[in-house]
Amino acid sequence: MFSITVRDHVMIAHSFRGEVFGPAQRLHGATYVVDARFTRPELDADNIVVDIGLATVQLHEVLDELNYRNLDDVPAFAGINTSTEYLAKHIADQLADRVHQGALGEGARGLAGIEVTLQESHVAWAGYTRSL
Amino acid sequence: MFSITVRDHVMIAHSFRGEVFGPAQRLHGATYVVDARFTRPELDADNIVVDIGLATVQLHEVLDELNYRNLDDVPAFAGINTSTEYLAKHIADQLADRVHQGALGEGARGLAGIEVTLQESHVAWAGYTRSL
Amino acid sequence: MFSITVRDHVMIAHSFRGEVFGPAQRLHGATYVVDARFTRPELDADNIVVDIGLATVQLHEVLDELNYRNLDDVPAFAGINTSTEYLAKHIADQLADRVHQGALGEGARGLAGIEVTLQESHVAWAGYTRSL
Amino acid sequence: MFSITVRDHVMIAHSFRGEVFGPAQRLHGATYVVDARFTRPELDADNIVVDIGLATVQLHEVLDELNYRNLDDVPAFAGINTSTEYLAKHIADQLADRVHQGALGEGARGLAGIEVTLQESHVAWAGYTRSL
Amino acid sequence: MFSITVRDHVMIAHSFRGEVFGPAQRLHGATYVVDARFTRPELDADNIVVDIGLATVQLHEVLDELNYRNLDDVPAFAGINTSTEYLAKHIADQLADRVHQGALGEGARGLAGIEVTLQESHVAWAGYTRSL
Amino acid sequence: MFSITVRDHVMIAHSFRGEVFGPAQRLHGATYVVDARFTRPELDADNIVVDIGLATVQLHEVLDELNYRNLDDVPAFAGINTSTEYLAKHIADQLADRVHQGALGEGARGLAGIEVTLQESHVAWAGYTRSL
Repeated sequence: MFSITVRDHVMIAHSFRGEVFGPAQRLHGATYVVDARFTRPELDADNIVVDIGLATVQLHEVLDELNYRNLDDVPAFAGINTSTEYLAKHIADQLADRVHQGALGEGARGLAGIEVTLQESHVAWAGYTRSL
Repeated sequence: MFSITVRDHVMIAHSFRGEVFGPAQRLHGATYVVDARFTRPELDADNIVVDIGLATVQLHEVLDELNYRNLDDVPAFAGINTSTEYLAKHIADQLADRVHQGALGEGARGLAGIEVTLQESHVAWAGYTRSL
Repeated sequence: MFSITVRDHVMIAHSFRGEVFGPAQRLHGATYVVDARFTRPELDADNIVVDIGLATVQLHEVLDELNYRNLDDVPAFAGINTSTEYLAKHIADQLADRVHQGALGEGARGLAGIEVTLQESHVAWAGYTRSL
Repeated sequence: MFSITVRDHVMIAHSFRGEVFGPAQRLHGATYVVDARFTRPELDADNIVVDIGLATVQLHEVLDELNYRNLDDVPAFAGINTSTEYLAKHIADQLADRVHQGALGEGARGLAGIEVTLQESHVAWAGYTRSL
Repeated sequence: MFSITVRDHVMIAHSFRGEVFGPAQRLHGATYVVDARFTRPELDADNIVVDIGLATVQLHEVLDELNYRNLDDVPAFAGINTSTEYLAKHIADQLADRVHQGALGEGARGLAGIEVTLQESHVAWAGYTRSL
Repeated sequence: MFSITVRDHVMIAHSFRGEVFGPAQRLHGATYVVDARFTRPELDADNIVVDIGLATVQLHEVLDELNYRNLDDVPAFAGINTSTEYLAKHIADQLADRVHQGALGEGARGLAGIEVTLQESHVAWAGYTRSL
């Protein structure tokens, strides 16, 4: 199995509901360093997994919808704890939609899966893996 | 599949038996930067994999039993080569016991697996993955 | 010149005023990975720059006053752009006060300077250096 | 499942053919930081996955055949786009051959798989995973 | 003294002349992860060292002139060993020119110095520091 | 001012004397990831700070005298707390001797200074800077 991964980041504010979150129930924020990994069993005609330039642009566009925002005010996240692991799935699903729409190129239709990892600090990160 | 990972470290002395280890047969030591990764297929009621605070505390407690010790003198490791890969399994198994005992919270009973990685330098690391 | 550095992190929300900040004028957030570096020309009687345990605890206490907060609501920062470089100075000054109060130990009175670096992402960081 | 990983690097020149590569169609170059990960279900008689010293030497030898070269002039790569993902497979296959030839020790015959990851920058990397 | 640093990268081919370079006399290549650090004694009216957005754009433009090129064919480098340390100075000087031309904003005229670091691998980097 | 830095590592056991060290008074160990930085005001005739190959070899030889050892048993360290900052100076001084003896090449006589940094974990490091 082959893979390529591209990295970008996003800076957001949010708060959590639930005692388990302790002081993170207060409005605070995070930088997420985001890695999007694309897998496929065989390389395409250009000998690549996916156009790394397109992958970088598409990841950036997906993150742009979150960047410099208070997620508590984003309608799509109303009533939802926007935990790191939840956001990993949100981003992976957005990327999957874009793959299916052809935004990562025709060759990207051969992709097998996506893994998104969000590093929230030097000591904690979360991820979500899905097939395509 | 979702995952969260927390990082801590431990500083130990030990020696190895066996020609394959060369100069590492002498008493020496290591800092292991330890990553504990917890996986589960669905998020819990709080929208998380596991309470990252509890995971951090439990990992720290497991490492505390090893920290600032000469492993050659620890009865549990008598006659055992405490290689990086062996220690990864030791720590993963200790964490699994704690999950089963409820120390990572009731929600943690939905965890599917644990992966522990020990970075022994900037050029070498070892890991162990198990189900729960 | 000798130095020791300890690392911790803090997760905050804030917003900026001024056109130069573009979309960062909106309420957003950041994880700052914080490095506090202490320098001195000669080691103390224990052959160290400063007790690394005390340095870690004091840095953590300074960060605790910021952690999981919206800096826009913190009275000490009223009307101030809490830029990464500004926060580096704020943290360095708080640490300097603690050195002068003896919180890092009597030996720490021999410290020459402090440098604080805040990494806001994998592609940007800021710092502040001062003498003691 | 157990694993150990060793890291080395290689510095090469090459160019790509195909519009998808944009300016990378020009002769340019890359440093690849290469991670070779070896997996096995049970440890060997020495309590290790594979001799980390031998693994390091064998990876270095495989990379030496590429290091400080223009891959466009290497006969084995004639007419081939030497993408990061392609090179990951090339290196993994070379290491697999060496495992089968006994170059990583008799114990290495118990290895289950190899994963090779090539980091081409701080924001992009590629990998290839295969069984043995 | 305050500082901010931004990171980008560039991928080039080149060769060296001189026995000291050994196999690096052959045409090969490198990824340089480039950190540009700007210093100043006091923050500007916006409470920053320099507009991090402008700094990022200007560094990217400077690197764009080198990116995906064989430096042996660039007229500006004719007869010059484009060592990592030499390139660090080249980039720092280009950035200094842009500061003096106002490309980093009027406030950037208060900058005191620039340091450019080029990481050529996980085990080697070079830098150049100059005043403005 | 120009600089180049090379990285290597060493794995040792040791113990400390003094209440300030707490549990580190017990025999334990550490991996130190060691960065040796060489500075000079002007590049040499080959357009470099120092031969990076020679610098790497010399650093490796200096570390080899410490590697896989219990520093408590090394006569040169008898009665000395081998703290991270102390070892940084020890290594810097050894490298300085080698520069003066010509082991880094004739051109290295133009070097201005050495900085050695020892990373003992992902959250703590120490350094020593000296002139030549």
